[in-house]
Amino acid sequence: MSTAVAETSTTTGLREGAFGNARALACRECSHQVALGPHYACPECFGPLEVAYDFPAVTREEIAAGPRNIWRYKALLPVPTDIEQSPNTEPGFTRLLKADNLGRTLGIDNLWVKDDSTNPTNSFKDRVVACALSAARELGATVFACPSTGNLANAVAAAGARAGIKTVVFIPSNLEQPKQVNSAVYTENLVAVDGNYDDVNRLASEIAGEEEGWAFVNVNVRPFYAEGSKTLGFEIAEQLGWRLPDQIVIPVASGSQLTKVDKAFQELIELGLVEDKPYKVYGAQATGCSPVSVAFKDGVDAIRPVRPDTIAKSLAIGNPADGIYVLDICRRTGGAVEDITDDEVREGILLLARTEGIFTETAGGTTVGVLKKLVETGQLDPALETVVINTGMGLKTLDAVSGRVGPAATIAPSYDAFAATGI
Amino acid sequence: MSTAVAETSTTTGLREGAFGNARALACRECSHQVALGPHYACPECFGPLEVAYDFPAVTREEIAAGPRNIWRYKALLPVPTDIEQSPNTEPGFTRLLKADNLGRTLGIDNLWVKDDSTNPTNSFKDRVVACALSAARELGATVFACPSTGNLANAVAAAGARAGIKTVVFIPSNLEQPKQVNSAVYTENLVAVDGNYDDVNRLASEIAGEEEGWAFVNVNVRPFYAEGSKTLGFEIAEQLGWRLPDQIVIPVASGSQLTKVDKAFQELIELGLVEDKPYKVYGAQATGCSPVSVAFKDGVDAIRPVRPDTIAKSLAIGNPADGIYVLDICRRTGGAVEDITDDEVREGILLLARTEGIFTETAGGTTVGVLKKLVETGQLDPALETVVINTGMGLKTLDAVSGRVGPAATIAPSYDAFAATGI
Ligand SMILES: Cc1ncc(COP(=O)(O)O)c(C=O)c1O
Ligand SMILES: Cc1ncc(COP(=O)(O)O)c(C=O)c1O
Ligand SMILES: [Zn+2]
Ligand SMILES: [Zn+2]
Repeated sequence: MSTAVAETSTTTGLREGAFGNARALACRECSHQVALGPHYACPECFGPLEVAYDFPAVTREEIAAGPRNIWRYKALLPVPTDIEQSPNTEPGFTRLLKADNLGRTLGIDNLWVKDDSTNPTNSFKDRVVACALSAARELGATVFACPSTGNLANAVAAAGARAGIKTVVFIPSNLEQPKQVNSAVYTENLVAVDGNYDDVNRLASEIAGEEEGWAFVNVNVRPFYAEGSKTLGFEIAEQLGWRLPDQIVIPVASGSQLTKVDKAFQELIELGLVEDKPYKVYGAQATGCSPVSVAFKDGVDAIRPVRPDTIAKSLAIGNPADGIYVLDICRRTGGAVEDITDDEVREGILLLARTEGIFTETAGGTTVGVLKKLVETGQLDPALETVVINTGMGLKTLDAVSGRVGPAATIAPSYDAFAATGI
Repeated sequence: MSTAVAETSTTTGLREGAFGNARALACRECSHQVALGPHYACPECFGPLEVAYDFPAVTREEIAAGPRNIWRYKALLPVPTDIEQSPNTEPGFTRLLKADNLGRTLGIDNLWVKDDSTNPTNSFKDRVVACALSAARELGATVFACPSTGNLANAVAAAGARAGIKTVVFIPSNLEQPKQVNSAVYTENLVAVDGNYDDVNRLASEIAGEEEGWAFVNVNVRPFYAEGSKTLGFEIAEQLGWRLPDQIVIPVASGSQLTKVDKAFQELIELGLVEDKPYKVYGAQATGCSPVSVAFKDGVDAIRPVRPDTIAKSLAIGNPADGIYVLDICRRTGGAVEDITDDEVREGILLLARTEGIFTETAGGTTVGVLKKLVETGQLDPALETVVINTGMGLKTLDAVSGRVGPAATIAPSYDAFAATGI
């Protein structure tokens, strides 16, 4: 594969332990292995490459003694053992909240919200970007870049600023204004592209092929990047007291996150850190961009790309790279992929806010709304322990709800004026 | 004092251990003590009441074994020992980041940012509200309320939703839209008041005097509420390895937070959890609302109220309840109170974003900008270890910077179009 990271970044130029316990990159389709480096597609079959490890014995105690961020799991990530010493945003170890109010409303007995909105740039993307940053550094990249539906751009620009590396982030020009400004405060190089995310993604691949020294986090260092999402799975298990939940609901854009949460659960079982048990994985999409949900319902293996049209812009990937693996996992575990309308997305946002005091963005509204639909349609068992992931935060998609809520009254500063409101 | 919390909430109605190790409320001015309850002003001299404790021996190990949120310090707060069992937002234990880039830019050798923007509702207010919620619950309150410059309303509405108690939050009607919507997603009872914060605050006191069962977090349960800010001081010391910094810079609105961070440091010394050493406390204000800074510079003890006119709306309290104690502390420790213009506030926001990847709101821009000014004017020693607190987050005050930053270019989705940008 052509790679955008400079020549110094071949395996021979790497320092010892640059990728921790990672051993190679292995093809998800044909198992062919290549050396660790800025590669993302199999030279044999063009399948996606994934990080393979030689894991040492890892104990719960070792993990518990680590820092209160994703680096507590560094032995299970493609990062060097001194990763904490390099400037990074220190994401992760976010709240796992018992969601009894939401559970009662939906009729679920035992419900948890994993709340990733309290990450450094308020989405789960800080996790994947921290791993990509480490890879970019070890590979000698000089530019840290991404195509993004918004949250990734925020995370890349912030992490790059803190690491002192040049960042360039590409977004669809019709993206929500808060996400645009959020990126632009961190970097001078925010590039708006007239097109949808899939157009932006194609442009990024083109630039990756032309320029030297560029690490596109979700393109040419994607295998390293994607591993970061495993930490969501690790944390959920650790925070449950080293136990897997029975059911988990995860939003799907490219499908990377869902795929890696499943990989995390599998690794924990292999390592003996949790007991082996069945669990069901569910994917959540907005109907206006639901290629994976459509394929799931149609019972087909191939995903037909769509042109997105939904307020859930962070999930608006019409041609999802890992969509087929999402199908595999949801089918294998007995879960499902479901989708809801934009109105149901808005309702999901308000439902989570009013029951649990969490203000999520449209992606989280999608996930909570899909959870509701899964219960109502009998696809999810309300008697089993369930985790729903909130991956983002509401101030980034304010317009989705700003027309629906506001002051109950605007009054003069007097008790009589207040009494007249009837509150 | 008249109190808004119902009769059941007198000391006799309290359950054993309702306020943990707290012993009484003591007057900050005359040391007169009253029983624990919904009281906030001394019956003898009208001075503010503060929580006094009978502290048990507390070890670093006991604290380290606690949860990863403010309840790890529950022995030092006015909360019951089973506080984790009551639904709350689980705030705190936020990042303390080594800020080498910002330090280099400002010429400070050893600088840290305590980043409270990653709290559940993205400001330090989640800490104080969690303590107020506990008090409201123990006192049998039926309504959870506040007057607010924005962040407090967000925190009260979210915590109230999660706790399942009715919330009513009062804000100035000219508040930033993101903060208004943020409160309104959590509660139906957002009341906008035509007036500034000081007008809203007066209205709240009036309502507290008229209504039964209302706990106004920063009015009639203020002594309990205020203790929550101590956790910022506790965390900084613990995260530095049980050590106090030499200098600390804190934003000032009512002055409560600064006062309580100092109280936290004093308690840690008393308890033998850190070594006794000198430290300097600095207060930060925006020039458009700088009554404490003006008094500091004039060398006077009294604070003359002002009518606020600044973009730092979360700090826009013209008549600060704890202003005189801020003066005391900054003078006693050898620190200072300083203020900067709105343009410097905006620069402070961009400076923190571009050096450390943290997007703060105007309050944080004020604090970082004041830090810069303190170094430039020789009031802060750049050779000493310094902590600056970021208390809020940038998406809540987007307009402060949205005119200043944005896409570098908007292009067609082609490599040629990108190449033409010169990036
Ligand atoms: C908030 C949020 N949630 C979920 C996702 C989906 O992630 P993935 O592409 O890994 O499926 C995204 C992707 O941008 C996102 O921004
Ligand atoms: C973000 C932020 N920082 C600082 C403050 C100042 O707090 P205090 O009133 O305790 O001085 C406030 C108060 O509203 C705030 O919202
Ligand atoms: Zn292959
Ligand atoms: Zn008194």
